Parts: sequence; structure tokens; C-alpha cells
Amino acid sequence: MSFSFTVSIQDPTGARRGVLNTPRGSVQTPFFMPVGTQASVKALRNEVLEELGAEILLANTYHLYLRPGHELVRKLGGLHDFMSWPRPILTDSGGYQVFSLSELRKITDAGVRFRSHLDGSEHLLTPEKAVEIQLALGSDIAMVLDECIETPAPRDKAESALQRTTVWAKRARTAFLEHANRNGKLLQWQFGIVQGATFADLRRESARHLLDIDFPGYAVGGLAVGEPHAATCEMAAEVTGLLPHDKPRYLMGVGRPEQIADYVALGIDMMDCVLPTRAARHACLYTREGRVLIKNARYAQDQDPIDPACSCSVCRRYTRAYLRHLFAAGEITAAILATHHNVHFYLDIMRQIREAIEFGNLAKFSSEMHARYSAEPT
Amino acid sequence: MSFSFTVSIQDPTGARRGVLNTPRGSVQTPFFMPVGTQASVKALRNEVLEELGAEILLANTYHLYLRPGHELVRKLGGLHDFMSWPRPILTDSGGYQVFSLSELRKITDAGVRFRSHLDGSEHLLTPEKAVEIQLALGSDIAMVLDECIETPAPRDKAESALQRTTVWAKRARTAFLEHANRNGKLLQWQFGIVQGATFADLRRESARHLLDIDFPGYAVGGLAVGEPHAATCEMAAEVTGLLPHDKPRYLMGVGRPEQIADYVALGIDMMDCVLPTRAARHACLYTREGRVLIKNARYAQDQDPIDPACSCSVCRRYTRAYLRHLFAAGEITAAILATHHNVHFYLDIMRQIREAIEFGNLAKFSSEMHARYSAEPT
Repeated sequence: MSFSFTVSIQDPTGARRGVLNTPRGSVQTPFFMPVGTQASVKALRNEVLEELGAEILLANTYHLYLRPGHELVRKLGGLHDFMSWPRPILTDSGGYQVFSLSELRKITDAGVRFRSHLDGSEHLLTPEKAVEIQLALGSDIAMVLDECIETPAPRDKAESALQRTTVWAKRARTAFLEHANRNGKLLQWQFGIVQGATFADLRRESARHLLDIDFPGYAVGGLAVGEPHAATCEMAAEVTGLLPHDKPRYLMGVGRPEQIADYVALGIDMMDCVLPTRAARHACLYTREGRVLIKNARYAQDQDPIDPACSCSVCRRYTRAYLRHLFAAGEITAAILATHHNVHFYLDIMRQIREAIEFGNLAKFSSEMHARYSAEPT
Repeated sequence: MSFSFTVSIQDPTGARRGVLNTPRGSVQTPFFMPVGTQASVKALRNEVLEELGAEILLANTYHLYLRPGHELVRKLGGLHDFMSWPRPILTDSGGYQVFSLSELRKITDAGVRFRSHLDGSEHLLTPEKAVEIQLALGSDIAMVLDECIETPAPRDKAESALQRTTVWAKRARTAFLEHANRNGKLLQWQFGIVQGATFADLRRESARHLLDIDFPGYAVGGLAVGEPHAATCEMAAEVTGLLPHDKPRYLMGVGRPEQIADYVALGIDMMDCVLPTRAARHACLYTREGRVLIKNARYAQDQDPIDPACSCSVCRRYTRAYLRHLFAAGEITAAILATHHNVHFYLDIMRQIREAIEFGNLAKFSSEMHARYSAEPT
């Protein structure tokens, strides 16, 4: 099987139901990628991810470049062999992490010079280097290096970051295609990333530049970083309105459970977020009735499962009272059980969303999710 | 099924092969109990423990009394229901933890007054209270409260602790039998604990006192706390030499992989130790060839499993290089995979020991284990 993307159904909202094929397997769209930053989805074994039906994971170029190093991963057969995950993997470019985690970063047209957050060592990440690292990792989908800026951003800063992101995207595409031509075989799909902060015209401009370069898929980056949900949706809509129907669209770093269907309704096919795993480790559990903050004393004697409507193996066996005890006692098993449930919840939302699209009633699903989570703290 | 213990085979060494029956299931002896201090074996779900063939767990009276509290556990149906572990559970009395963890302890004939290591609250643990707590927890095997002393201990201190332990054991037995008579049904087995530090005559004296009281099983406590392995064996042998053939013998808090068979050869039927789980979290993995300190740089590119001869699901899927990376990166999954392997290793040793007894060649198994681990750091 080679790389392809097919949209089979479109919901009245604009939501798309399809399939993304890769040599390592097919992924039903729209999908959510559990985040395995350092080649591990925190607190979950790969066996569990398979059992939960995860068809694709996200891993992080910045982290894996610094540790264990992309050359080591290449030597050991690539990321799939290294972490024993045979299904597709998407790697982000490391752009976001360089800007959020590293120290003393200096951006020039060449790339971004930074110090490792692990040992202070100095590195230069260029668009070409990000391509090279991801080819070494052997991910199925690679992202171009983009310039990420803090939000809210002034317009001139957003504009110059957009221009640099465009130039970098061209260079990344050239480097990638040179490698593919040398290699004679397409081993990876490379996606461009639309920037432009919260300026609709800049978002459109960025999208047009990337369309000129021509990628097999397009991501929308730099959103869900503090702006209101409506703004995220508005910006995503500006972009998806311009993107070709027959290519996958990836909204990076989203989202809350009740927001997922909104993004899908804007024509988004792919998402990722640390929320289900991170919230789980902080004792925040997602249910059909809203969030359960399991450390709360009200659950001390609660013999219900986390979510009585949930079919995951945690809800079939363990009570809220026990989960609360495990968190109170600082047991590792608390993180294991909570993460299992939350990832199941997200993947289950995606299954329900795909089904809703097939039945043409995604709007109903979306409003129900908002109603359930509306009274909740954010 | 009610409580019973049968020895079916005795090896030339003195090792015994048998079965301990409880209303919640049978346990093949000799056995090793994974330690679930706070009603959870750290980093392992109960599903995994079942898959690994654990037939019994140990839980901790001191910890569960303080959090979540034995009355809460009783209200929620007892420890088995609370933690969703349907198989047998042994609870220790809390004696050891009171002496090693709590602050401001004051021992009188009445019991031991201490401050919780969690919140500083003051508590009085008496022999009767330890019985009451364990009845509330509903464990299958309960231990009497004993006075644990630091080692090496002067003879007079060991003697007075022994005397108090004897008096406490009588009171605990009386309290337990009163409850059993009121209840009309035996829901739990209560074991006595032999003390006496490293004085052979005191160990024998303690054992004789407990035999007079008459318990369905006997433990040897206060060993493997720093004294040489030979001394542990010598003291255990002094005790097992006096104990009746038809009752189970439990050596508390042991041991290293290569020592297990030695204890079994002394006629020990039951053991527990935090070593396999704690060592795992500290990146120390047990294999048939000795310890693997997986953080070592030599494993960075090692594509072998932890133990090529091991059949556990971790060794079937993951490499040493990946395990090393997970530990280096501080991933929770490191603890999950390492603990799984180490507990499998211990339970597998027990399976091999039981088989060796059946074939009458435990001595050979024991010397092989010592040879493999002899060159290792301790």
C-alpha cells in the first residue's frame, strides 16, 4: 500500500469521512493522534494503544533528536522498530518545542539556533535538518519546520513569521523531494504548516503560499494557544476554505473533548493533543457527563466506574473510590488507569464522530457534547 | 472451599511442595507474594498480575489503616472488592511499618503509640486493633502485631521484644478467636510471627511460645534486615526445625533472586519482598544471566530483549535500547515494563522451584542461581 487519501462522505456541516492510507496501514479519518512525545504515550504500553484502537501516534522530532538522537534511531531500524509500534507515526517538525522549551534561541533566515533543555548543548535546526531528522526517524508523515510565535502577536511579527515560514517550507520541500528522488521511493508524506496568528488575511496568504509549493497534506499551526475557541474555529475555517478537497487537513494541538466535533465540522481530518494523557495524570477524567476531578472527596465512597456508560477495561473493573485512593496515595497505577480511560474516551469520541458523519448528524453530536461540558470548569 | 494446607512432596533438601487453600482460591506452595502496599502493586494493573499468574498478593495494614482507612474499605465490601482483586490477599500487621515509617513512636505493653507519616495525627496500634483492622480489610491471611527492633540488636533488647511479642500474640489470638466465635464462620487465617533477632536460642524460645498459642501458620519476622545471608538462613532453620510439618511457614520480607531457593530448601513455603518492584523502578532488571542495570550506556544500541530466555510480553516485544531510552527520558512506561518483567521473573523462579521440588533437584537449581548471580554487585 502506498500513500493516499480519500474522502468518501461529506456531512452537511462540511465534516469529511475518509481514509488515509500509508505503507504501514490505513487510518480512518477524521482521527485523533495520542501523543508519544518521547516515543512513548505516557503511562500506556503499545499493547494498550492497539487494544484501544489507536491507528496512528504522534512523536516529537525535537525531543527524539536530543534524546536518544535520530542517528541512533536510524541505526536501530527507525522509530517504528525502536519503539515497537508497527502502525503509522506522524512526527512534528520540532518547531513548536524549540520555541517553547529550549533556551537562548536565535532565529535567523538560516534556521533556529538553540540550547538543549536537557544539557545546554547548542544546536542549529534548519528546515533541511528537520527533514533529515524525520527521514532518519522514518515516520510516515513529517512536518516542515515553521516559525512559531507567542500569542497574541502583533501583526508585523505575525507577518514576518509567516514570510519566514513560507521560505522555510519551500526549502524543506526541496530538500525532501531531492531525497525522495535520490531514493527513488516515497517513504514519507511531508505536510506544510499554515501560520498567520489570528489574522484572517495572513492565514489565507500563508495557505496560498503553501498551496503554490504543493504538499500532499496541510496543517494549521499556531492555534489553540490561548485564543478563544471561536477564534480558533474562525482561523481554521479561513484555511480549510482554501484547501483542496482531496488532501488531508491537520489542526495541530487540539483539543478539548467538546471542541473536537467543531473542528471536524470545519473540514479538519486530523488532530493531536496532550490533553487526554496530561489531564489523566492530573486526576482529570473525561466522561459522557463531563469532567470527573477524581481527587474530590465526593468520590471517596463512590462505587461507580469512572463513566458508567464507558466500555473500557478500566471502567469495567475499577471504581471511582479506588481510583481516588490511588491518586491520593501517589500510586503509578493511578496514571496508568486514568490515561487508559481518557485515551479510550478520545478515540471513542472519534468513532462516534465518524459514525455521525456517516449518518449526516454531526451537528447534533456536537451540540450534545457542548451541552454536557458547558457547566464544567475549563 | 475453606482454609487448609497440604504438603504433597518433600525434596531431599527439606523443601516442601504443597497447596494452601482459601475460600478465595488455592495458592501453590512455595510461593512469592508481590507487594501491593497501598492496595496496588506499583506500576502493575491487576489484569497484568493475573496474566503473570500471581495467585496471592500482600497488602499493608499500616498504610491502609491510615489511607484510605479500614472502615472505608469495610464499607466498600473489603479489600478484595475495593481494589478488584478476587484472589487471596495476606495483610501484614503494620508492626514493621510503625517501627520504620512513623514518628514519635512509644511502645508500652498496651501497644504502640505513633504519629502518622502522612499527616502527623496520633494513633495507638494494639494487638487487638491490628486484628480489628485486618478483619475490616477482610484479608485471607492476617498477621499478629509484633515488636520489631533495629538490628543488630543487643541481647537484652531482643529478649524483651520477644517477650512482648509473645504477650501480644496471645492477646491477638484471643481477640481473633472471640471474633470468629461471634461470627460463627472462619473468614481469615491468623499467623503468628517468630522474633528473636539473630539469637538462635531466642528464636527457638519465640517459636515454642507461639506453638503453645497455636496458630494455623507461622511467620519468621525481623530477618533480612541487614544481617548476612548465612545468618538469615541459620535463624530461619532454627525456627523451621521446630515448626509442625503440616502448617505453612512464611519468611517475611525476602529475598534476592538467588536466595529464594535457599529459603525454600529450609522448609519455607511463603515469601514476600518489594525487591522485584522497587528494583524495576530503579532500572535494575533481573535475568537468567544476572542483573541488567539498564541505564548503562552499553545497552544504548542493544536490540536484544531484557532477557533473551524470558517469555514475558515485555521481552517478546521491546528491546534493551528502548527500555534504556524510556528510563533516560523519565517515562512512566519504563516503570511499567520493568516491573512487569521483574515480577514475571520472580513468579517464574517460583514455578521453576516448585518443579525442581517435584523432580527432587532443588539443590541443583539453587547452586545454578548462585553461580549466575555470584559475580554481580549486590
